[in-house]
Amino acid sequence: MKEAIDFWFDFSSPYSYLLSEKIDDLAARFGRKVRWHPILLGIIFKATGSAPLTLQFPAKTAYSVLDFQRSARFMGIPYRHPDQFPLATQHAARAYYWLHGHDCALARRFAHAVFRALFVDNIDVSAPAAVLDIAAGLGIDRGEIEAGMQSPEIKARLKQEVDHALAIGVFGGPYVVIDGHPFFGADRLPQIEKWLETGGF
Amino acid sequence: MKEAIDFWFDFSSPYSYLLSEKIDDLAARFGRKVRWHPILLGIIFKATGSAPLTLQFPAKTAYSVLDFQRSARFMGIPYRHPDQFPLATQHAARAYYWLHGHDCALARRFAHAVFRALFVDNIDVSAPAAVLDIAAGLGIDRGEIEAGMQSPEIKARLKQEVDHALAIGVFGGPYVVIDGHPFFGADRLPQIEKWLETGGF
Repeated sequence: MKEAIDFWFDFSSPYSYLLSEKIDDLAARFGRKVRWHPILLGIIFKATGSAPLTLQFPAKTAYSVLDFQRSARFMGIPYRHPDQFPLATQHAARAYYWLHGHDCALARRFAHAVFRALFVDNIDVSAPAAVLDIAAGLGIDRGEIEAGMQSPEIKARLKQEVDHALAIGVFGGPYVVIDGHPFFGADRLPQIEKWLETGGF
Repeated sequence: MKEAIDFWFDFSSPYSYLLSEKIDDLAARFGRKVRWHPILLGIIFKATGSAPLTLQFPAKTAYSVLDFQRSARFMGIPYRHPDQFPLATQHAARAYYWLHGHDCALARRFAHAVFRALFVDNIDVSAPAAVLDIAAGLGIDRGEIEAGMQSPEIKARLKQEVDHALAIGVFGGPYVVIDGHPFFGADRLPQIEKWLETGGF
């Protein structure tokens, strides 16, 4: 059995959203599964002294917002830059990990729904109520997932994922690891494809 | 006559080197010329509060050096990460602008030779003597180009190019502008190709 690919991301990261729409199908073509790891880039940025692309300086902000949208069109993915950006995503990430403990496939559908709510429907997914609405839309019981999101186990799980990301050198998202080899950014998709095809180059 | 493409870069920028090996041929396929603009990213970074990729924090340094080399292999371009990195490139840039005033085609060959000296042959091109050696290898008179590099006109020209880059929002290299649309990074080459092919997307 081939080793799964690791996909580190934050639900608020535009390039992570773009990669999320492609990575599973690409991996499947080469007989690979993908392990999704929502993390909190705010903590990663604080630890490394970095910052979100849109909060660095004006020229980079303007270019980044333009590039998010143009890259989405280039990749054939719908994108509407959110009014609320950047935003906190710990509630969505905790909901993901709680769900994943019960139903991996449903957790994956939930993750896609969170990304699309934010980057297509302009929904502020930082609010716990928005996260619960998305879950309810997938037939998940609101009360159950809300209790799961607030449980100490799930809070600890998210913290552990962020700590692990920092330990292996994740400094932004999306960050994909294939057999120990890191690839940073949605624009590394062609290199990821060639790597999977050839076994490395 | 179609408008030329602008290519802003620093001779010490690995991704600028990678793009430099492809951009003229790509543009030519669509009936376009490319205007090359060597600038000094050190000044741009100081103005924007940014820093070279390898001087930000350890995880990013390690990834960047890996990615320079892997991206070069992916693009079929030879690359050896220089021992001296990053480095100052005002002498090479001034030599380029002086040459360009006399012979555009020769200036282009000189620019390729500077990039390859640094990123293939591991030559520290921050030294004026190294720049003169490269020029001499192309049959250019050492004394003439040396005097040109030191002239107030050429120093002012380089300063003017850097100021212009800052004014139009250049924040790193390579930075390509096609009909007013900016593309940052060697990894935007597929988007540049599609843009030239379709007239925008």
